[in-house]
Amino acid sequence: MLGLPPITVMSAFLVIPRADHDQLVIHAYQARGFTATEAAEGAKLAAEAARHGIRTHHALKALHLDDLFGSAVGGCVPGAEIEILPSRFAASERWNANRKLGQSVAYRAIDRAIELADQFGIAQIAVDNAFHYLWGGGYVMEAAERGYFAYTNCTSALAEVVPFGGKFPTLGTNPHSWGIPRAQTGDFPIVIDWATSTVAMGRVQALKREGKSLPPGAAVDAHGQPTTDPALVASLLPFGGHKGYGLSLLNEIFGGLIGGSLPTLRGRQLAIPGEKNTPVFYFQVIHPEALSGGNFACSRNQSDNLAAVIADILGHGNAAAMLPGQLEAAARQRSDAAGGLLFTAPEIAEFNDLAADLGLPAWDPATLAKVPLE
Amino acid sequence: MLGLPPITVMSAFLVIPRADHDQLVIHAYQARGFTATEAAEGAKLAAEAARHGIRTHHALKALHLDDLFGSAVGGCVPGAEIEILPSRFAASERWNANRKLGQSVAYRAIDRAIELADQFGIAQIAVDNAFHYLWGGGYVMEAAERGYFAYTNCTSALAEVVPFGGKFPTLGTNPHSWGIPRAQTGDFPIVIDWATSTVAMGRVQALKREGKSLPPGAAVDAHGQPTTDPALVASLLPFGGHKGYGLSLLNEIFGGLIGGSLPTLRGRQLAIPGEKNTPVFYFQVIHPEALSGGNFACSRNQSDNLAAVIADILGHGNAAAMLPGQLEAAARQRSDAAGGLLFTAPEIAEFNDLAADLGLPAWDPATLAKVPLE
Repeated sequence: MLGLPPITVMSAFLVIPRADHDQLVIHAYQARGFTATEAAEGAKLAAEAARHGIRTHHALKALHLDDLFGSAVGGCVPGAEIEILPSRFAASERWNANRKLGQSVAYRAIDRAIELADQFGIAQIAVDNAFHYLWGGGYVMEAAERGYFAYTNCTSALAEVVPFGGKFPTLGTNPHSWGIPRAQTGDFPIVIDWATSTVAMGRVQALKREGKSLPPGAAVDAHGQPTTDPALVASLLPFGGHKGYGLSLLNEIFGGLIGGSLPTLRGRQLAIPGEKNTPVFYFQVIHPEALSGGNFACSRNQSDNLAAVIADILGHGNAAAMLPGQLEAAARQRSDAAGGLLFTAPEIAEFNDLAADLGLPAWDPATLAKVPLE
Repeated sequence: MLGLPPITVMSAFLVIPRADHDQLVIHAYQARGFTATEAAEGAKLAAEAARHGIRTHHALKALHLDDLFGSAVGGCVPGAEIEILPSRFAASERWNANRKLGQSVAYRAIDRAIELADQFGIAQIAVDNAFHYLWGGGYVMEAAERGYFAYTNCTSALAEVVPFGGKFPTLGTNPHSWGIPRAQTGDFPIVIDWATSTVAMGRVQALKREGKSLPPGAAVDAHGQPTTDPALVASLLPFGGHKGYGLSLLNEIFGGLIGGSLPTLRGRQLAIPGEKNTPVFYFQVIHPEALSGGNFACSRNQSDNLAAVIADILGHGNAAAMLPGQLEAAARQRSDAAGGLLFTAPEIAEFNDLAADLGLPAWDPATLAKVPLE
């Protein structure tokens, strides 16, 4: 053992107390002109993403996106007010977000959809002129923790995905997120949450750095021809062929109906006068009692019946199968047990760059608690 | 040319006038004890499936399913009445279908959900104790033709699909269907409609007959190991890995919340007292106006905006990409141009067997109009 190098910081996650994380992130948002409430909502979503192991959508990504597409260039407008348009439909609302911070809009939409679902059993909020909301799974997870079945989709900023059978990227990576409550049986919420592209563009770049190939059917080159070489990748393909393509199309259809403009213009500088380049959000909440036929086998109640169905699916030798949301629930347990949010040393270094820009003290890796990397 | 054999019946579709088709199918349903209304609704869905080229879900499949799982064994109850349970949620209804013919239940659910969506913008009908509804795409297509955005899913009769990461089939092939209206711009409805298994069990049997292999990742053998040999296939896999698995799970979650019992018992003889073996249906209808932010680029209206979005997606050299529902729309044009429903000679022979059983005259292939096979 003596010949081995000492354990370096890279081999562990460093633990940042949530209050410290939130203070820095709130500062960063406020320095960009966001209100205290917006900053707190942005920090909340970022903290929840980190807490649940969503390493691609925590604070560093959120602030990076704001630099690229957000408050720095007008895609996001600090302090913007949500305009609730009149609706003749009692269970539906139409919002003009006026490019307000996506996290603030999404948390409010979930709150309002829950209020409406309490009354109508199902409710929807359609949001035009949105900005990025980062992690759709976070909002439906919150609704699920409050006892509701929730769904959201959005149109992604850039068209990077080629329609099935086509050659040119005209679709966003267009994610879908569903959250299903299971608190009454003491279980973590099921959260089904993924983009409709086979892989993310960030994953392609990672494979390129690592000298690895993509799986077949994940991407095409500049000529629209399939490639597994990350260096040649120009665009992504939808997962699951025509089926994933249909799911990606669905977000564009919501976009078209809500008020999004041409997907190939979205998130880009507008070259065509009169067009729009903002994404849309769609939220839906269902009250589980509105679904219940009230006649569950073996006198089970609704929650116990769902638990019995899930146990059957994961039984019969299927113990190796996981539920969507299981990894997130495990990451959350790990974070909570560690007493904070887990980041890698390079992430801490990035946070410290941010702190330096804001004139705040750096986090000292030497003094931070550590937990082993998974 | 003289040396070529004459064109055989196999090389063409035979055209059955819709009235003749409906008469036979209605007769078949009524002979099984279904009411005149149920028989007409069963014939309507079967005719629409055939008209739209859905060769896997037309009358022969419907009647075959009824033999295997339906009125012959108590899975479907002719003349059953739908019981509408009290709901405290104004935009939601909960129905006990009492195993009524699935097509009758589904058409009524779409009608009622449209009425509710007119009032609330969005509406849902949850149906417990259902029977097979055959072709989910048919119901959402009808809603779309009437101007509504519709969605349905159901739990499939048999658990044939292995959860991602598992070994044993505990999930149905669990389809999802979305219909999107486009009549205002003179376009066919977009209909996204597929099972969440990579392939159907019927396709595996066809590949076996043809001596062909399955695509990788589509199925497993009796030991839960991946196989591409159709002769070794014991169970199917979800499409798109964990993503399709999540979508399949979603139907089971609706099932668990509505009142379905253990997926591995569904559609089978009940060995466990007190359990249920009936599938569930879920229907949702959205009024498109409830989604509109009213602020479309270039002064477009909502329909024109959706058309512009779709044109952008299929533009840029993507002409070879198709819209979901395009093949069905082409088949419908072909059927309507031919003046009836198109069947192959073996299908006509099966219909004639059915007619003989019912004491009805056979259709004479020699006298039927023909159109070339696609």
